Amino acid sequence: MSDNNIIKPKTLPGFMELLPNEQILFNKMKDIIRDSYEEYGFLPLNTPIIEDAKVLLAKAGGETEKQIYRFEKGDNDLALRFDLTVPLAKYVTEYYDKLSFPFRRYQIGKVYRGEKPQRGRYREFYQCDIDIIGDGKLSIINDAEIPSIIYNTFKKLGFDDFTICINNRKILNGLFKNLELANQSQEILRVIDKIDKIGIEKVREELSKNVEENKLDIIMKFLAINGDNKEKIDQLNELNISDETFKEGLNDIKQVLNYIEDFGVPEENIKLDLTIARGLDYYTGTVYETFLNQYRNMGSVCSGGRYDNLTEYYTNKKMPGVGISIGLSRLFFQLIDNNIISAENESLTKALIVSMTDDYSYCARVANDLRKEGIKVQVNFEEQKLGKKFKYADNIKVEYVIIIGEDEIANNQITLKNMKTGEQQIMELAKAVEILK
Amino acid sequence: MSDNNIIKPKTLPGFMELLPNEQILFNKMKDIIRDSYEEYGFLPLNTPIIEDAKVLLAKAGGETEKQIYRFEKGDNDLALRFDLTVPLAKYVTEYYDKLSFPFRRYQIGKVYRGEKPQRGRYREFYQCDIDIIGDGKLSIINDAEIPSIIYNTFKKLGFDDFTICINNRKILNGLFKNLELANQSQEILRVIDKIDKIGIEKVREELSKNVEENKLDIIMKFLAINGDNKEKIDQLNELNISDETFKEGLNDIKQVLNYIEDFGVPEENIKLDLTIARGLDYYTGTVYETFLNQYRNMGSVCSGGRYDNLTEYYTNKKMPGVGISIGLSRLFFQLIDNNIISAENESLTKALIVSMTDDYSYCARVANDLRKEGIKVQVNFEEQKLGKKFKYADNIKVEYVIIIGEDEIANNQITLKNMKTGEQQIMELAKAVEILK
Repeated sequence: MSDNNIIKPKTLPGFMELLPNEQILFNKMKDIIRDSYEEYGFLPLNTPIIEDAKVLLAKAGGETEKQIYRFEKGDNDLALRFDLTVPLAKYVTEYYDKLSFPFRRYQIGKVYRGEKPQRGRYREFYQCDIDIIGDGKLSIINDAEIPSIIYNTFKKLGFDDFTICINNRKILNGLFKNLELANQSQEILRVIDKIDKIGIEKVREELSKNVEENKLDIIMKFLAINGDNKEKIDQLNELNISDETFKEGLNDIKQVLNYIEDFGVPEENIKLDLTIARGLDYYTGTVYETFLNQYRNMGSVCSGGRYDNLTEYYTNKKMPGVGISIGLSRLFFQLIDNNIISAENESLTKALIVSMTDDYSYCARVANDLRKEGIKVQVNFEEQKLGKKFKYADNIKVEYVIIIGEDEIANNQITLKNMKTGEQQIMELAKAVEILK
Repeated sequence: MSDNNIIKPKTLPGFMELLPNEQILFNKMKDIIRDSYEEYGFLPLNTPIIEDAKVLLAKAGGETEKQIYRFEKGDNDLALRFDLTVPLAKYVTEYYDKLSFPFRRYQIGKVYRGEKPQRGRYREFYQCDIDIIGDGKLSIINDAEIPSIIYNTFKKLGFDDFTICINNRKILNGLFKNLELANQSQEILRVIDKIDKIGIEKVREELSKNVEENKLDIIMKFLAINGDNKEKIDQLNELNISDETFKEGLNDIKQVLNYIEDFGVPEENIKLDLTIARGLDYYTGTVYETFLNQYRNMGSVCSGGRYDNLTEYYTNKKMPGVGISIGLSRLFFQLIDNNIISAENESLTKALIVSMTDDYSYCARVANDLRKEGIKVQVNFEEQKLGKKFKYADNIKVEYVIIIGEDEIANNQITLKNMKTGEQQIMELAKAVEILK
């Protein structure tokens, strides 16, 4: 084929594509998350990536519509899923009669958003979601279990120093309602959100443009609430806000915080953070964000919350739920980028079998025997110089090389070389099995 | 929200979407295939589902072009991958400098073909691929390892009675070249392919329309070759065909068959089948098809072969390879459809914890302790009558229910009920751990 017909292969910008060692590490993290979700009784789902655009966009609007991959095929108006929540709403409605509620499902899969590609922002990325969906109602205790799943998952991923921030949307909503500021709540929250960056005085200054002095005093008192979780609850009580929504939120968060301890989350890993709102139109109760304390600038690595009605666009049945999501592609990128994890020495294969002769029968049998013991091995079958074979072993990061020459074949033995120490020894296969296991 | 705004949720036709118990079984099969591939030293890849259409379609044409999901987003001409081989060719070329050859990779992922939906034919389906790619050359012994991977994988999937059929394209190509029928080979193979259905006499009759008598005699002699693999090789030798390609093919298949035994594939599971060709333009050497003997009508459940040049459309480097693919979505459908497997009693969760009181603190602690022992448990937090909770346990197919009432809390015990036998017993948690493990 002539050069002219050659097309330069290129992965699209904004699409994560990893080298094998990186992929091994990525998969390990994905497996840990999956195992953790399964430990808590969540069932796997795997919905299609392509859906009917009208079904997928029942609720969407604004940014979502702009970012979505939507296209026609024949007469069909199709779209790629942009999250795993809308497909869940579809699924729960479609298979309602065949499911048992509360329905606990996890889904780990790719979603698609045609955002402007930026460092660490992908157009195709993994979300790892769990949700608990009730039929009509769902106990508040589920909201207390969620932080324990976050805790368990991040511990298993190897983290210790992280904080699960928890709040209840009803507290903020009730406060604003009580102050007759409900219409301005979005704008006020936007300003409050900057508190970490600009400080409390600047927040007051900015809010004072649109909020009366007496109301502003109460907001500032609210924002000044501090101490441990119990102290914060006490101070919330002392605000003496009569609004029913506020009281409900306060009661809910008290219950949730009480149970969280029983679910095994240490006090230092859970923090009532009264400023967390997580967007404005979706969550209705408890909300969660999770931060790696030493890398707070990474933003929340696991977020979610309680919603009143998952399926409102598909059915008149009321389906409340609570769930969280880990944006694994972005998290993986950030962890690598901040040198928190490294894929440098990742390998799945334990040993490479290298032959010094042209006869591979004995190699094949050795490989076969080792695999029967659950040991991952590869045989190098290529006609290469020994040096090249060892270079290959180095590159694929195997811990051991098994060398097979005429002596080994004659004596029904193998030579095992430890690639780290350089030590090598001739031995029976049974002994090698022990070491390799 | 009024009824008028409700959209009927509907999964698109041709897209597999499973119930949770089915998904558990599907995932088990997927995990077995993955484990088996990893045992042989294959590295994971996960390429994007969306690629640049020009890159993806470099080679394609005909049916592929028609079936492909292709669309524009902004200025980009995009397409969804229709197999995992083209993305591999792209990947190997793009990251050539960072890979070690022979490059052994597996990829298990969804691919997309807008075929007419039929029972068991999906537009979105899983392929589970392995390929071994050489840089310039690749030893024929790799071709002998592939059947051992097929064998290992299907054994682990629970099958015993299956046949891996193997052939070498050079034998057929050489035969036709020798008979000066190379131009007609496609048509002749099409007729030969019907031998199982219409019988050898009808095949002769049909071929006689376009093939001269003396040539037809040799083809019929070729088709009459039978016996065990060694006998077939002998008869191939006896044909005395002088064509170099034929001789090469014969030599290759001899070597491959010799090694297959060493790789641990029993004789009854491997069969030299001289009529297998597997399409005409892609494979150049060894080819494989795999049949479940009792369900031959399912077609091949695992196919593949050797190709001379994976990357010819992307680079002038020559990259020969050998690989196989399992079409898991279709296989899963067929196995369920033929009652070979059943997802009826599939469950991941070992026990459901049910509370007889309003206090869930003790339940939460029990759940936490069990999970620390690696036992998958779920707590039912809902205000429901006990009967309803047990019905739920039945539905989600847990083996055990853990009942916690006032006595259990007071004595720091639990009641464990075996859902199959109906037996229940009050005991220390430690004892329950033993049973549940």
